[in-house]
Amino acid sequence: MGSVPPTSPFAPSELPSAAPVDGVRLAVAEAGIRYKGRKDLMIAVMEPGTVAAGALTRSKTRSAPVEWCSEQLRHGRARVLVVNSGNANAFTGRRGREAVEITARAAADAVGCSVDEVYLASTGVIGEPMDANGFAHLLKGMADEAVPDALLPAAQAIMTTDTYPKLVSTDVEIGGVQVRIAGFAKGAGMIAPDMATMLSFIFTDAPIAQPVLQTLVSAHVDQTFNCITVDGDTSTSDTVLVFATGKAAVRGAPLISDAADPQLEAFSNALKGLMHDLAMAVVKDGEGLSKFVEIEVSGGESDGAARRIAFAIANSPIMKAAIAGEDPNWGRVVMAVGKAGETADRDRLSIWFGPHLVAEQGERAATYDEKTVAQYMKNAELQIRVDVGIGEGRAKVWTCDLTHAYISINADYRS
Amino acid sequence: MGSVPPTSPFAPSELPSAAPVDGVRLAVAEAGIRYKGRKDLMIAVMEPGTVAAGALTRSKTRSAPVEWCSEQLRHGRARVLVVNSGNANAFTGRRGREAVEITARAAADAVGCSVDEVYLASTGVIGEPMDANGFAHLLKGMADEAVPDALLPAAQAIMTTDTYPKLVSTDVEIGGVQVRIAGFAKGAGMIAPDMATMLSFIFTDAPIAQPVLQTLVSAHVDQTFNCITVDGDTSTSDTVLVFATGKAAVRGAPLISDAADPQLEAFSNALKGLMHDLAMAVVKDGEGLSKFVEIEVSGGESDGAARRIAFAIANSPIMKAAIAGEDPNWGRVVMAVGKAGETADRDRLSIWFGPHLVAEQGERAATYDEKTVAQYMKNAELQIRVDVGIGEGRAKVWTCDLTHAYISINADYRS
Repeated sequence: MGSVPPTSPFAPSELPSAAPVDGVRLAVAEAGIRYKGRKDLMIAVMEPGTVAAGALTRSKTRSAPVEWCSEQLRHGRARVLVVNSGNANAFTGRRGREAVEITARAAADAVGCSVDEVYLASTGVIGEPMDANGFAHLLKGMADEAVPDALLPAAQAIMTTDTYPKLVSTDVEIGGVQVRIAGFAKGAGMIAPDMATMLSFIFTDAPIAQPVLQTLVSAHVDQTFNCITVDGDTSTSDTVLVFATGKAAVRGAPLISDAADPQLEAFSNALKGLMHDLAMAVVKDGEGLSKFVEIEVSGGESDGAARRIAFAIANSPIMKAAIAGEDPNWGRVVMAVGKAGETADRDRLSIWFGPHLVAEQGERAATYDEKTVAQYMKNAELQIRVDVGIGEGRAKVWTCDLTHAYISINADYRS
Repeated sequence: MGSVPPTSPFAPSELPSAAPVDGVRLAVAEAGIRYKGRKDLMIAVMEPGTVAAGALTRSKTRSAPVEWCSEQLRHGRARVLVVNSGNANAFTGRRGREAVEITARAAADAVGCSVDEVYLASTGVIGEPMDANGFAHLLKGMADEAVPDALLPAAQAIMTTDTYPKLVSTDVEIGGVQVRIAGFAKGAGMIAPDMATMLSFIFTDAPIAQPVLQTLVSAHVDQTFNCITVDGDTSTSDTVLVFATGKAAVRGAPLISDAADPQLEAFSNALKGLMHDLAMAVVKDGEGLSKFVEIEVSGGESDGAARRIAFAIANSPIMKAAIAGEDPNWGRVVMAVGKAGETADRDRLSIWFGPHLVAEQGERAATYDEKTVAQYMKNAELQIRVDVGIGEGRAKVWTCDLTHAYISINADYRS
């Protein structure tokens, strides 16, 4: 590996912390999967009765662990999660499937559960065969030693090119009883280099029936993790899994088995908020970034159209390079709206950089002042707002700029 | 403007030349549209009877001159072409349409033709009002002084971030009579920064009926100019225009009025070859490039599917950065195939870097030797080949790498 990437300017000054979630114990280990001397394996052991819901990459070349999770999410019973960094076990053929089976069997034996209650994720190099026998024997000891208060070490063990751990927790009430949600993620993007898959694992002690949990996860992923982009690339391994142990039932929390149950609303909002925070933490650690950018599109023909326009802006290399250069280059926003392929009318388009209207009615705004807007571009967090002027469709996506450091990280990675 | 971009490593050592085309006279001028002391205006005057065919950007925010050409291509009668660099006259609202009308009227007066026989293109900054009165008065003098042997100055006058002029000519026979095709283009990409629209203008003295010419242009653009990408961005101004003066009829060339006429075949191939050469010249001057890359996809579900997979690879920032770093990172090819959204089966996918098979049947090829392939990546011209293993669909696209120089050009442009 080449030079160490610079730490994100958005890295928090202190390590995050999160209180334990009832029914979840975690442990980490140094398995030496790719590098020596770093924790690269984690296990989360969950009590019987835990259910899982999730969202997996839509890539057509998804990894063996993603295929495994897809299979288990059909029933959603869960007892144990094993995640390794250093090797993605992606595009590893028959041997990849064997590595998954070896790991799952060892995890099931370690916890004393059925193999189909095991969930797996791997992140790291693509196409290198992964030797599961090199670490499967560690799982029993890890499961035995796992403790509730180990969310931070787990968040650290799944990092690859991340420059800081991403861990969030929150408390919320269901039926008057406090429940907890805690989760962590890794980036360093929604993107998919060898080393930068997006993974997120979230735990709660709330008693939520599996189909209800899946409904929440599907809806919220769409508005959070699926609204971020670093470079438009999609990993073979992207995985979001949410586990509900149900242990808050001991304290009197009611089981929610209907997604329309009004008792669910606060929990749903809290879960969405936590997923949003983790997604923002991922973007803010985007490879090589210097700026964080919110792109808001209104007036699209539909929400989907607005979203595609927002992503056309967010994924435009030329736009992202301009942002890195603190250049209020709104002509590139016009270009990106034009290439999105959605209904747009040059003469109805309005564009703002932060509070500054820069273009409207098909031309530069009369009030546009280059110096003022150039000054705005010096902020670390920026907003670009577009009103398409066609309909009622809205979308918001988040991205970062495209910098020399991105090129260095990805061009010089194996040098 | 910041530092001057480095000259492309593919820049020819000598300036190109091209012999005149019967019925076409050209002139250039310094109009001071954005910069002083450089030729930024060109006119091509064509004899009565000339027909035009073309292909225009599919952007939804296309420029005023593109809309103008779209209107004139409905009949295809042509007498004069005016192109300026320095200002794209894009997103300039009502004033943009007025600038087009002023220019067209002045050009028509200069040549003594109808305004609807005027074709226009502009390239340069987006969103700045263009003062057509600042140069319209020059057109009469230019038209009067235009000479047949001025293709190279014309090719140079339309350059923006291009580091070399792109001019190609060829001779071919129709009905036993030699005809000529000559054309030029500018890049520096298919992309659309302020200064890098793709424009190409091609002239022939072959007698070709307008609908036949349009059929050829549409088919060939699809296989040439529409198969190149620098950064996946689409200009508001991309324009390809082909003008046929018919003057070879004087020497006995037959008028071709049926696209199925077998006498057309050699001409069609020659035109396509010339368009291919110009397209390659544009990619090889892609902003900041160090490598030229051909991406060939076979075994797709359809030709369209193969093309979308090829472009997913060609437009992946992470793949392009790896190429810049001479890293044979085929895992990123797998990722790009996966994200293309087309039918693919990990276990049927094969990938070659040049002559080297790197992956097959869902895993790294047994014969893969990292050192050998890393050595191959040091070449300036590279080929990445993918067989999807699903169907008979094929596509070939061309691109370049993503370098530090690209970031510098586009981040620091207005600094």
